[in-house]
Amino acid sequence: MSWYFDHLDLERLRREYPMGDAFPRAYAGMADDELRALQDARFRRVVACGWRTPFYRSLWGAVGLEPGDVRGLDDLHRLPTYEKGDLMAAVEELPPYGGLIPDPEEGRPRPPVVLHTTSGTTGTPQPLLFGPWGREVANLLVARLYRWLGVTDDDVVHSVYGHGLVNGGHYLRESVIHFTGATFLSAGTGVETPSIRQVETMQRFGATVLIGFVDYLRRLAEVAREAGLEPGRELPVRMLIGHLAADARETVEAAWGGAPAFDWYGVADTGSVAGEGPLRDGLHVWEDAHLLEILDADGRAVPAGVEGDMVVTCLYKDDVAPVIRFDTHDVSAWLPGASASGLPFRRIRGFLGRSDNMVKLRGINVYPHALAQLLDGDAALTGEYVCRVARSDAGRDEMTVVLEHRAGAEAGADERERLATHLRAQLGVAVLVELVAPGATAPLTQVEARQKPIRLLDAR
Amino acid sequence: MSWYFDHLDLERLRREYPMGDAFPRAYAGMADDELRALQDARFRRVVACGWRTPFYRSLWGAVGLEPGDVRGLDDLHRLPTYEKGDLMAAVEELPPYGGLIPDPEEGRPRPPVVLHTTSGTTGTPQPLLFGPWGREVANLLVARLYRWLGVTDDDVVHSVYGHGLVNGGHYLRESVIHFTGATFLSAGTGVETPSIRQVETMQRFGATVLIGFVDYLRRLAEVAREAGLEPGRELPVRMLIGHLAADARETVEAAWGGAPAFDWYGVADTGSVAGEGPLRDGLHVWEDAHLLEILDADGRAVPAGVEGDMVVTCLYKDDVAPVIRFDTHDVSAWLPGASASGLPFRRIRGFLGRSDNMVKLRGINVYPHALAQLLDGDAALTGEYVCRVARSDAGRDEMTVVLEHRAGAEAGADERERLATHLRAQLGVAVLVELVAPGATAPLTQVEARQKPIRLLDAR
Repeated sequence: MSWYFDHLDLERLRREYPMGDAFPRAYAGMADDELRALQDARFRRVVACGWRTPFYRSLWGAVGLEPGDVRGLDDLHRLPTYEKGDLMAAVEELPPYGGLIPDPEEGRPRPPVVLHTTSGTTGTPQPLLFGPWGREVANLLVARLYRWLGVTDDDVVHSVYGHGLVNGGHYLRESVIHFTGATFLSAGTGVETPSIRQVETMQRFGATVLIGFVDYLRRLAEVAREAGLEPGRELPVRMLIGHLAADARETVEAAWGGAPAFDWYGVADTGSVAGEGPLRDGLHVWEDAHLLEILDADGRAVPAGVEGDMVVTCLYKDDVAPVIRFDTHDVSAWLPGASASGLPFRRIRGFLGRSDNMVKLRGINVYPHALAQLLDGDAALTGEYVCRVARSDAGRDEMTVVLEHRAGAEAGADERERLATHLRAQLGVAVLVELVAPGATAPLTQVEARQKPIRLLDAR
Repeated sequence: MSWYFDHLDLERLRREYPMGDAFPRAYAGMADDELRALQDARFRRVVACGWRTPFYRSLWGAVGLEPGDVRGLDDLHRLPTYEKGDLMAAVEELPPYGGLIPDPEEGRPRPPVVLHTTSGTTGTPQPLLFGPWGREVANLLVARLYRWLGVTDDDVVHSVYGHGLVNGGHYLRESVIHFTGATFLSAGTGVETPSIRQVETMQRFGATVLIGFVDYLRRLAEVAREAGLEPGRELPVRMLIGHLAADARETVEAAWGGAPAFDWYGVADTGSVAGEGPLRDGLHVWEDAHLLEILDADGRAVPAGVEGDMVVTCLYKDDVAPVIRFDTHDVSAWLPGASASGLPFRRIRGFLGRSDNMVKLRGINVYPHALAQLLDGDAALTGEYVCRVARSDAGRDEMTVVLEHRAGAEAGADERERLATHLRAQLGVAVLVELVAPGATAPLTQVEARQKPIRLLDAR
């Protein structure tokens, strides 16, 4: 038996992933070839772990690769990408872990495994596996972002990420407690801690930073107001950190009394891949910890500005369940040029939708999750909505966007027309608009219970 | 900013709290004075931390104590006891932490604080505060027990302790992941992971050990059977570790196909205070980590066999929020003699009820939580029940015990009479019996949602 902590080299952690003031100092002005050399060294460790892992031996063996074929970053393209479906097929074949636990290294004890699952509410949950090193680097990467954004020892961070078997809440709790110095409130979803109790808890313990999915954070602001507590005044929240890319930055900031909202991107498999800095000029990819590729449907790298699938290799996850060219099917695009932050890391626009949730209307790609951005800043709307897609008898696909309007169904035809015109102009294709009262879409989107609200109801 | 891990001296942890094979080896046959010397040294550290803590400075100052008055264990009795009401009054006076965070030690950085709350569903939640050292020793004490009971690296531990703001689930998760080497399933309550999903998860990941409150573990066995999975066969659980003292050991063991159940005792403030060893000959108090006193209503130590309130001093919690003579109002009694385990630690009977939940019927003390023990092993019953107390017009208190009977309300008067006679013989006072169908008490006890089911409905 070995302890979790026996597999966690704190000196190496401090050296390889400087944080706090040391973070910008370590990277500002770093030359491209120096960064690439650092990535190359970490990539080799990850590939070595891959060869000890049955899942990758099988995936790579199927395309004829042998150990030694991939000698460094220059050979990255030789490795096949894989997606969630491949992981689930492996889990079926080699239950319960799909061959993602590496064989132990020669002469070293097997590290303990941290097991969670994804938040899917139906079907087989996907196992998520971490070793102590991979887990704590992932934790540190979140904390490094938070400290960079200005979180201090004196902050109280209120989290609405869910717990139970799901990873999210545990992950963020560890991140904040282990590495930020701030105090943490593990409220969880509205199912774990009812919304009104969440608001009371924020007030009691003086929450200054809210983290989680912004749909629910926005809902909490409404609950606070109903309870007579004005966000920003009685609840002195000064910062929101969540997943905004395709959500409504302006509405959540307005809901919380103008506190600035910061976006970051990551999925359960990869941890935090990129985040906005204090300047909010795009999301910096943590290129000391991740290789991010943005690829088109044929697997070719897209140029800056062009949308494609994000494919992630975690350069830090070299103990348990490595992540090597995982196609998230989340869509983003590179931002051109360098950040004023001085960091050498490239930047992305953030999450723009899912390529596999895309709806094609008369040849135009529409991402239901990305609609929030288009509606953002419209004071007549709450920011909550859901899209319904149906096929007419003539075989034509129609999308109805159900929008929560502050005037409810009484808003009238003119208002419906105004919003339909706006959406058509933005999307490049006509959609139908239906207006409902504030709160009316919650049963459909499940915004209080789900980490990621449902935005597409596909009735085709 | 300092990291959580910077405040965790792993070498000291290994030296002061040996575990695994080293645990019985370190303590077996230890002389009483050697154990007392160890306790004395730890007690002095804790008292020093107490004097740095506003809550204790106020509590101790109010009885005229000054630093230097308490020089070691011999002066323990000079310190006043306190109870949850005192903590909550301090929280009112010094929100939100009630003065439980010590002033930093001279020349050392303030340790980060882990904050949780108790699980109360109404009123002000009690804050629970931990420093890295106190938290990880508490984690280790649980893991030490698990390993002693035979949990190995190959076990899969399924936990039904709740998460969110509540401490329990996070505490046990950390214990198992950090120190046992086993794999952990953080299922949480039935609200976090629906019961049928819990059963599927156990099967998928091969759960071998179940931990949590036995009321809900028993419920899960019923759900498994309804789903066609026979506990012990399709679900190869080999061990249950929970809080049994006043609950039904036999019924939960029978429900889980005869897997042995092991009892332990602790409250949110204290962590694990005592646990059954492999021989199940009473609960060993972890006397290297806790001072346990069992006191009568006048604060005098009771002799072996006599019930009294458990008053706890945590000898390990010397960084944040020390616990020094906390009256839990949980009732237990010392077991006489030494354990065959060879450990020098004294033993208790386990949790026998709460002194403040006690009902006095015609001069006899009845603890509703302790009824489970009296009903245990009766195959006609599910083990679920609730007690209702009402006052008659004549001013007489009557208790009705509502029992779930496998034959439901159709069980008839003879069966009701049999159970009433049995209970009267055991309790020494007559109670009324009402029989209901399996599952019918769940809405009253809230066994699926609450960590500790409600057993007393007081209608006086």
